[in-house]
Amino acid sequence: MSRFDNRENDELRPIKITKNFTRYAEGSILIEWGNTKVICNATVEESVPSFKKGGGEGWVTAEYSMLPRATQSRNKRDIHKLKMNPRATEIQRLIGRSLRGAVDMKALGERSITVDCDVIQADGGTRTASITGGFIALALACKGLVERGLLAKMPLTSYITAVSVGIVEGQSVLDLCYEEDSAAEVDMNIIMSNASGFIELQGTGENGTFSQEQLAEMLCLGKKGIQDLMKIQKDALEGLELR
Amino acid sequence: MSRFDNRENDELRPIKITKNFTRYAEGSILIEWGNTKVICNATVEESVPSFKKGGGEGWVTAEYSMLPRATQSRNKRDIHKLKMNPRATEIQRLIGRSLRGAVDMKALGERSITVDCDVIQADGGTRTASITGGFIALALACKGLVERGLLAKMPLTSYITAVSVGIVEGQSVLDLCYEEDSAAEVDMNIIMSNASGFIELQGTGENGTFSQEQLAEMLCLGKKGIQDLMKIQKDALEGLELR
Amino acid sequence: MSRFDNRENDELRPIKITKNFTRYAEGSILIEWGNTKVICNATVEESVPSFKKGGGEGWVTAEYSMLPRATQSRNKRDIHKLKMNPRATEIQRLIGRSLRGAVDMKALGERSITVDCDVIQADGGTRTASITGGFIALALACKGLVERGLLAKMPLTSYITAVSVGIVEGQSVLDLCYEEDSAAEVDMNIIMSNASGFIELQGTGENGTFSQEQLAEMLCLGKKGIQDLMKIQKDALEGLELR
Amino acid sequence: MSRFDNRENDELRPIKITKNFTRYAEGSILIEWGNTKVICNATVEESVPSFKKGGGEGWVTAEYSMLPRATQSRNKRDIHKLKMNPRATEIQRLIGRSLRGAVDMKALGERSITVDCDVIQADGGTRTASITGGFIALALACKGLVERGLLAKMPLTSYITAVSVGIVEGQSVLDLCYEEDSAAEVDMNIIMSNASGFIELQGTGENGTFSQEQLAEMLCLGKKGIQDLMKIQKDALEGLELR
Amino acid sequence: MSRFDNRENDELRPIKITKNFTRYAEGSILIEWGNTKVICNATVEESVPSFKKGGGEGWVTAEYSMLPRATQSRNKRDIHKLKMNPRATEIQRLIGRSLRGAVDMKALGERSITVDCDVIQADGGTRTASITGGFIALALACKGLVERGLLAKMPLTSYITAVSVGIVEGQSVLDLCYEEDSAAEVDMNIIMSNASGFIELQGTGENGTFSQEQLAEMLCLGKKGIQDLMKIQKDALEGLELR
Amino acid sequence: MSRFDNRENDELRPIKITKNFTRYAEGSILIEWGNTKVICNATVEESVPSFKKGGGEGWVTAEYSMLPRATQSRNKRDIHKLKMNPRATEIQRLIGRSLRGAVDMKALGERSITVDCDVIQADGGTRTASITGGFIALALACKGLVERGLLAKMPLTSYITAVSVGIVEGQSVLDLCYEEDSAAEVDMNIIMSNASGFIELQGTGENGTFSQEQLAEMLCLGKKGIQDLMKIQKDALEGLELR
Repeated sequence: MSRFDNRENDELRPIKITKNFTRYAEGSILIEWGNTKVICNATVEESVPSFKKGGGEGWVTAEYSMLPRATQSRNKRDIHKLKMNPRATEIQRLIGRSLRGAVDMKALGERSITVDCDVIQADGGTRTASITGGFIALALACKGLVERGLLAKMPLTSYITAVSVGIVEGQSVLDLCYEEDSAAEVDMNIIMSNASGFIELQGTGENGTFSQEQLAEMLCLGKKGIQDLMKIQKDALEGLELR
Repeated sequence: MSRFDNRENDELRPIKITKNFTRYAEGSILIEWGNTKVICNATVEESVPSFKKGGGEGWVTAEYSMLPRATQSRNKRDIHKLKMNPRATEIQRLIGRSLRGAVDMKALGERSITVDCDVIQADGGTRTASITGGFIALALACKGLVERGLLAKMPLTSYITAVSVGIVEGQSVLDLCYEEDSAAEVDMNIIMSNASGFIELQGTGENGTFSQEQLAEMLCLGKKGIQDLMKIQKDALEGLELR
Repeated sequence: MSRFDNRENDELRPIKITKNFTRYAEGSILIEWGNTKVICNATVEESVPSFKKGGGEGWVTAEYSMLPRATQSRNKRDIHKLKMNPRATEIQRLIGRSLRGAVDMKALGERSITVDCDVIQADGGTRTASITGGFIALALACKGLVERGLLAKMPLTSYITAVSVGIVEGQSVLDLCYEEDSAAEVDMNIIMSNASGFIELQGTGENGTFSQEQLAEMLCLGKKGIQDLMKIQKDALEGLELR
Repeated sequence: MSRFDNRENDELRPIKITKNFTRYAEGSILIEWGNTKVICNATVEESVPSFKKGGGEGWVTAEYSMLPRATQSRNKRDIHKLKMNPRATEIQRLIGRSLRGAVDMKALGERSITVDCDVIQADGGTRTASITGGFIALALACKGLVERGLLAKMPLTSYITAVSVGIVEGQSVLDLCYEEDSAAEVDMNIIMSNASGFIELQGTGENGTFSQEQLAEMLCLGKKGIQDLMKIQKDALEGLELR
Repeated sequence: MSRFDNRENDELRPIKITKNFTRYAEGSILIEWGNTKVICNATVEESVPSFKKGGGEGWVTAEYSMLPRATQSRNKRDIHKLKMNPRATEIQRLIGRSLRGAVDMKALGERSITVDCDVIQADGGTRTASITGGFIALALACKGLVERGLLAKMPLTSYITAVSVGIVEGQSVLDLCYEEDSAAEVDMNIIMSNASGFIELQGTGENGTFSQEQLAEMLCLGKKGIQDLMKIQKDALEGLELR
Repeated sequence: MSRFDNRENDELRPIKITKNFTRYAEGSILIEWGNTKVICNATVEESVPSFKKGGGEGWVTAEYSMLPRATQSRNKRDIHKLKMNPRATEIQRLIGRSLRGAVDMKALGERSITVDCDVIQADGGTRTASITGGFIALALACKGLVERGLLAKMPLTSYITAVSVGIVEGQSVLDLCYEEDSAAEVDMNIIMSNASGFIELQGTGENGTFSQEQLAEMLCLGKKGIQDLMKIQKDALEGLELR
């Protein structure tokens, strides 16, 4: 069996990172991951939400949204439904949680970084592209804080990388595109740090269940993908040492 | 090391199911799981959402909410913030996805079942209590449809059961209460069907990461818990055969 | 003519108060009044709304809501309509006004008590159950403030009790259940203090009007019901003296 | 003791009705009641809300709102708070209920009449002015339906009139202005039909309670006021016979 | 060709200003402009929005709304759609911008003036009536500040006057009523100060385009109208000198 | 005096059109206009809004939004304020009105085209970029309808082009960048069709007024800019004939 786009089962789609994609954000990239394209803008603000005030610690959060025509048919904007899209709510909570997994909040100090992930084209894997690209934007913003002398050292403790795996027509595959995702029996998102540990794992049996053996197979593929992706992140960050 | 409430690491909190907790819902239970208490009401309606109309299939969805004083300090109601609580959004999507994992939508026919999970007291594990209890409410509602002759057979293909596991102070434990959950290094929710397969797996490193070995250990505890819980569900449903 | 449930015209439905129904609220009861069931949770907070700040006085307010399936058919949650239910708005204003009728705001000091009335099952009389039960929750919360030494004396000046009366098929009856309420020509809610005075009176001719003679007859029934209910409140509060 | 504006205790403020105040509404009046001024516009639409469809009956409803500067200090518009004012919600439900008390829905047929009560200046008694004036607008709209041949006869069964009474500094008084209302011990709104019956009665002890004797005294004053007001309504409607 | 209402092409509709239309606003007028009627209430508040705080300058803003039945068919209130009407949003921004064009914010000091323009009847030209009438209300409020000694001099630098012009059936006309506006090929709003300068110019080709010659013709008519209107404003303000 | 970026007073910033910027929209371009960047996506849908149904005509509308970090400081998303940004409301109404000026709705038939203008970087002139670029996206979508045989001919009657002019430090200049816009005495947006006629004209005196001579000077500059821009549009559309 060959995949929809002729990739090997353990092969990522082509990935391209464009740094400084917009000019105002403290960290800004465009990540193109196959046909999925996400603008990741990290904004530094010298304040923290009220629940963090006075504690000497910083905060990192994420927002995720799609342009109305990022998809095959047009979606109404949230504001016209007066309701944050529930899927986007779930995704941006995942992005924020994942990125915070790498941040030393004390080292960041009482400032906030918001990572806006705006999907301009969606072809599967927008959440993993948002985390993987959002980390680069976050790292660039932190690097800027160090370069401007606002921080003595990088407040990041590890790389954060995300990839999807799944079972399609009975086979475990890495990095599902939209067609594969729609047909998948199992869909799993894996978020890892450079310390080879899991930050978050979310697997869903879309049509039926999955066994522990299948889980092991998917994790194996996932780790391979994470390694490839982390190399791409390091290249984009020119080998930036985190600590 | 002993646990906060002296349980064994693989021991569930005491669980009590009260059937027919309210009188109008087609399926209604109160699940008391330690100090966590959730009312699960399943409502049958003879219509489906517009995206399912005309296809001859049914739909199952869930809603999750907490009473304002289900927790140690009072939370404002969603309507006063004009915004669905984001955590609740994430949870109710998980409950709905998990329950749909057991439903034969063709067998259900063009009708909807909404499972309302209203937490009246929260002490950790509200999402697993909602899924585990919500399944019983769903099954009772389906049983009613069969008994009233509206369905020829049960439209459920398996039991759906959920439990939390985690790593607290370095040890893997089953079924975290609120204090354990707050202190956990890793928190994982496991949803399984009676076919021993995983429906959904969500693990999060709250303070740091987790390794594949720790994952295996948690899954082992989780399966044990799932078996105990499924027995409780079956007792509540008086051994109801699904197919 | 006999009533729907064979009660005498001046007979209340069976009423049961369960104290400490939830564990976190400063005052918590479940009131079961026939088939109507309301959780009343009183929350004490050490702050007041901005319009009361700095005046040395406290504030008491109420919120009222129904679970989606408290009724025979399911109601959508407010948050999905982005609009507080207008009937609930009217009712919670009545509950708050009634309870404030018994509070010495100076004695309470600059703190707030919010009484959440959440209807889990509705069979007529939810507003009178909320006031009558809400008063008990409020009194328990105040008692706790005295016991913890935060207040020198109870800040309540009287009991507050509510009951419905009405005219059904030409006869005055006490405490209407849902079927009676739906068929009533006149529906009246009476809220009284232990000083035998009226706190609030709301009568509505649902199908036609009512005369002053009918009003007198309903008030007579209502006073009888109030006396019976106040005894139930006092028993639940173990004879708590207010001043 | 003399009243704030030197009126007798049973004396109404001067009342003026301007018919055809706006040119598009099917029934339109300005009611000036002392310094309280309310525009009442009745709109006829040839459709009914979904819950009335197909039953051959009509529907009458009311909306109530204040201009931002109808009061001594400016109030924000509802839309900027994204929330219908709770007091206005309560009032418009009362207006709608009261007016429906006089409507023969079968005779009206499947059409709706919406009575918009917009307060341009508020000096106490806006709800009684809205009901009393709103009835005139409603009657004018119905008269138009008869004149245009859309209805064979007036679909109203009685006049509907509203007035406030209260106890101020220990004395029962009719028709409270803002200063009296603010200082009142008891505040009561009385809505009556021409058949001398009560449509709705709402009394509130603002500072303490009221006795049955005080109630009788207030009702007596109220009936006197209702008679005077009904004469004003009849004059405005040029003696229009309802049936 | 004669106009819909037999006016000359350069003739305004009859205009009437009623001062002190409501009693609480610091500046209040009713402007009747043909059949268009707008209540303009200016409210002075001793505070400024947060973006102006601490700068020693004031702020002037406007709000615009229509009563539901200001028009031939009834419009739902904004609050029921949970959305500010987009046309009203555009108009109130124009009114605010135009009025601010005449205000010396330093001279006003750190206080705000909100000009509420509530249309009670609409027959074309509601935005120009709102600006022209709103200016009078604003001037009256400022005059009050001077008279009460809160300001040493008027904080207004010029009169602000607005009028519409357009091309209807090929002819340039001044001050379009609703029927003309609906049929117009071009519609233009002209806002000018007494210094003969333009404050704002908004022209729209509704059905096709307009040439620079047509623009010149319309501006010529507009200036004539502005002069007539400014005289009406000055009369209403009794020749009030601005500086 | 030289301009902020050394341009001549009648010189446009460099403009670049990237066609097929996203892959799903029926017409999609990125317009880069100096540092202003807007994605314009035109979506064709085979339905019309309810107010156009059954009339055999089509509809064209526009939506305008900025990414949170399109600007120097981050703006909250509309959905978090539950309110469409008022400035964006005004702008998207202008874009829609302008584009409709070129559409033959009968020729389009009962289908809708929505032009989404999403600003990813803002440096002045986002509304003129949205109209100028939005027209190209609209034309590409229409061209596709013709190519797919759904339309017999192009439903556009002319090109639509927009440019800003203004007065900065006393001099009339074409195409203001953000710094110029912030400092401008007068700001004007000119929208024209290829027939040399004006579609819309919006001029605002930001600090003071402007005279008819200044208006003429600005219009002269504007026409020059429109000609240059229309050439860029024609190049992008490869000389597409409209009729």
